[in-house]
Amino acid sequence: VPATPEDIRSSVTSYVERFNAGDREGWAALFAPDHVIDDPVGSPLLQGPDGAGTFWDNNHAIAPDAKLAISGPIVVVADEAAFPLEIQVSGVVIDVIDIMGFDDQARIRSLRAWWNLADAHPPAG
Amino acid sequence: VPATPEDIRSSVTSYVERFNAGDREGWAALFAPDHVIDDPVGSPLLQGPDGAGTFWDNNHAIAPDAKLAISGPIVVVADEAAFPLEIQVSGVVIDVIDIMGFDDQARIRSLRAWWNLADAHPPAG
Repeated sequence: VPATPEDIRSSVTSYVERFNAGDREGWAALFAPDHVIDDPVGSPLLQGPDGAGTFWDNNHAIAPDAKLAISGPIVVVADEAAFPLEIQVSGVVIDVIDIMGFDDQARIRSLRAWWNLADAHPPAG
Repeated sequence: VPATPEDIRSSVTSYVERFNAGDREGWAALFAPDHVIDDPVGSPLLQGPDGAGTFWDNNHAIAPDAKLAISGPIVVVADEAAFPLEIQVSGVVIDVIDIMGFDDQARIRSLRAWWNLADAHPPAG
């Protein structure tokens, strides 16, 4: 039985909430064992079962205060979710587009994220 | 020489402007001869050189009054652009995430778009 759109949206929401709560284990548990992470796109791929943990550690070493915020509608098509995201770090914002693929249990099997550190800008408003 | 981020952003803007102007030929000319269109993702692929024209005709047969609006930041990474878009049609809005790949002349080589007709909703505000 494929994951429902509701299950997929719930996983996306948990991805952001657990990241922002500093919950490394809970966040990594959102990934399927055979996941592939390409974030930002073009960087070396990180693969399961330990890719997500490595991704977390790499990012928290560089930007321990980073927070995420979903910045527009989450579109779900079949087993994929596509949505805009903000990385909020050190007083600046980086705009991101995420495409995630999910398994039947709504665990993240693939994460691709388009963003550039060079595009960081002050928060709106 | 790869296309610059400015060239790629200009192509994205033209894509929306020419679509909304009803300029079928100008819009189709934004695509490279060897393009591949997967819009919405999971539908039968349309390929160059005539895929874009077929895509235009198919969509205008179904929704001749559809307009597009970019609804968030355009992220450019290497030869790709990623951005949120709205399809505005018959008084409703459909949320879209587009990922486009470009050739050295900033012509569209690939278009993937995530959206569902079933997710149409009234305009905000």
